[in-house]
Amino acid sequence: MNEFFNVLDLPAVLAMKGQFSPVFTETVELSQALDRTLSEDITAPGNIPGFDRSTMDGFAVQAASTYGATESNPAYLEVVGAVQMGIAPKTTVGPGQAMHIATGGMLPPGADSVPMVEHSDAIDETTIEAHRSLAPGQNMVAGDEDVAAGQGLLSKGRCLRSQEIGLLAATGCSQVNVFRRPTVGIISTGDEVVPMEVDPAPGQIRDMNTHTLAALVQHTGAIPIHYGIVGDHHDDLKKICQTALDDCDTVLVSGGSSIGMRDLTVQVLETLDQSRILVHGISIRPGKPTILAKCGDKAFWGLPGHVTSAMVVFMVVVRPFLEHIGGRLPKADVQITARLSRNLASVQGRIDFIRVRLRRENGEQIADPVLGQSGLIHTMVEADGLVAIDMNSEGLDQGAQVEVMLL
Amino acid sequence: MNEFFNVLDLPAVLAMKGQFSPVFTETVELSQALDRTLSEDITAPGNIPGFDRSTMDGFAVQAASTYGATESNPAYLEVVGAVQMGIAPKTTVGPGQAMHIATGGMLPPGADSVPMVEHSDAIDETTIEAHRSLAPGQNMVAGDEDVAAGQGLLSKGRCLRSQEIGLLAATGCSQVNVFRRPTVGIISTGDEVVPMEVDPAPGQIRDMNTHTLAALVQHTGAIPIHYGIVGDHHDDLKKICQTALDDCDTVLVSGGSSIGMRDLTVQVLETLDQSRILVHGISIRPGKPTILAKCGDKAFWGLPGHVTSAMVVFMVVVRPFLEHIGGRLPKADVQITARLSRNLASVQGRIDFIRVRLRRENGEQIADPVLGQSGLIHTMVEADGLVAIDMNSEGLDQGAQVEVMLL
Repeated sequence: MNEFFNVLDLPAVLAMKGQFSPVFTETVELSQALDRTLSEDITAPGNIPGFDRSTMDGFAVQAASTYGATESNPAYLEVVGAVQMGIAPKTTVGPGQAMHIATGGMLPPGADSVPMVEHSDAIDETTIEAHRSLAPGQNMVAGDEDVAAGQGLLSKGRCLRSQEIGLLAATGCSQVNVFRRPTVGIISTGDEVVPMEVDPAPGQIRDMNTHTLAALVQHTGAIPIHYGIVGDHHDDLKKICQTALDDCDTVLVSGGSSIGMRDLTVQVLETLDQSRILVHGISIRPGKPTILAKCGDKAFWGLPGHVTSAMVVFMVVVRPFLEHIGGRLPKADVQITARLSRNLASVQGRIDFIRVRLRRENGEQIADPVLGQSGLIHTMVEADGLVAIDMNSEGLDQGAQVEVMLL
Repeated sequence: MNEFFNVLDLPAVLAMKGQFSPVFTETVELSQALDRTLSEDITAPGNIPGFDRSTMDGFAVQAASTYGATESNPAYLEVVGAVQMGIAPKTTVGPGQAMHIATGGMLPPGADSVPMVEHSDAIDETTIEAHRSLAPGQNMVAGDEDVAAGQGLLSKGRCLRSQEIGLLAATGCSQVNVFRRPTVGIISTGDEVVPMEVDPAPGQIRDMNTHTLAALVQHTGAIPIHYGIVGDHHDDLKKICQTALDDCDTVLVSGGSSIGMRDLTVQVLETLDQSRILVHGISIRPGKPTILAKCGDKAFWGLPGHVTSAMVVFMVVVRPFLEHIGGRLPKADVQITARLSRNLASVQGRIDFIRVRLRRENGEQIADPVLGQSGLIHTMVEADGLVAIDMNSEGLDQGAQVEVMLL
């Protein structure tokens, strides 16, 4: 068996990302920009909120007018008007003066703080008592306190969440330049595979890989394009692979878990335009029989036939490549840990990915390994995540703290 | 200040979900079903894979034919043919016989196990040596091993991930019944608020809430519908609120952080068709000035004006209601923990939600509180998650293990 005579370890494969260029960019409406990836740095065109703004309902005053004020010894202030929402007040507030102001109102010239209405008493129409001493800047935000003009706001490669959308709206950025969603061609192989809509005859199975991989591609922010099922025939496979390669940014061919079908896939990948096999086997389990060809500037992946293996390879290997060509920088490095509920054996020299289900026990997160052969889709349906067992480890002990990658 | 004279605590508010009915259902193509919520239980119509299937390249045999076989004392087997992929073999494999079979092939009648090709040697065209003793069932899956006909596969309320899509494809379920996506009307209020496209005059700010809330609604699997900005005017506000209520499953009105605008919102909510105020204040911070009216069978939310407060209320309060009316059962209860890098003070009697950024230090996840006034959007942009400080706590100590809700 010298089928995979050149098996690489996972970090070596992931390091090959840099050999592929990001896709082109496009301009989208902000309303369509959620979960898209910025293709340029965004600098603040102006200040936010843009004016000194009250954060309380109360009175705009000079803080100095309140110095020393207490409940028993209040400061008496002359009310010289009221700030209207959304309109710049023209009246200046001098020493000993105050203007009514609501939360969100613009501080008038001269004012630098806002006694809360709860800490004031109206004596008559034109006089209030302020019961507390304020510092300048209290109960207000300065015009450039949220965002200062010229400040770097968001960097190229940032994936936009709700709050980034809000920030861009606040800067008036109603259109935004983002990386195109990469297109991913999906091909299933195998003479035994029939489309989902077909009733399989004995010996045939329905195509799970196309639909599972398409969903994973969607979750990565890319666009899946279906090329159907192709049997164990060199010319047919080559034709459809070349078409998908011409159309898409990346191609996934999966299925055909027999050695014969895998050999055929490698033969076909070797003959595609400008093709070079970069990876022929990865020291992970499941997922060893994974192939990566670089065709021009495009990645062409041969994934294992078992749907569960294909899912693991997608999550662990293909997804980082797709994020890379989609221009996406790594998100927050969120760590999810759990305590393992039983021993797990492994073999040194490869990374094992184990399906686990999560539950809580006495406030602690427990990972229960999901049993059952690795090729069975129900084991993935029952699982919440994957736990990796390191290359240099012979297994993990019950009670070990493990890191979980959510499925 | 008896503005919120009837403040409820968070669990009491969340318990009101049950007063609202789920939306209707619809049928969608499986290719459109990712992240949708099943509106019915799914039972397996047949077995998967549907036939005894080889998981290795090798030979289909009767396990008994190999009993006692070793490297030095192999079992000799007569090769009686080859299984073709996707076709049910007709030849029966008897004692001492074997058929070539590839991974994924259907076991012929009589065969119950598969010696791997690596553990066999071809002597001539019709004879092989098997070097290991096999147990029945080895290197194959039984026809009902992944899924058995009639077995409950997925329950109503399940949100479909990639593997559920794959499982449904395997069962031939090319269309699926799901809950409609709830529609959510979004209204911004305040005389100081201008549309994103407008250059704000002094005293005005751009509408952040509409866009931020729309993005949060999208992430919840619902459909945001924009109703624009309305000023501090009873009849205008009432008209747009009633329109949104008639059109949508849920309505969010936000902005107008001044007491006057809030009072107006409450007055309007009280006069909508079949309206009853259920919540007028929640003991959380930020988010206290939150209002919930039940209008017929629809929830009408009055959210705080500050975008950051509105975001927290959406995530902590509104989202569980939206998931409920969208028919979605709680997903896996994933716990994300971190160690707090500094002391956090709090006040008893309310739940405080603190923004944090996550980082790793010596393999451990650390939560750094994000400083800055709560009304500022940049604090949300810098944050990865929220940490709750319990009602009965006066704060959290540096080094405490805290649970993080991702933003």
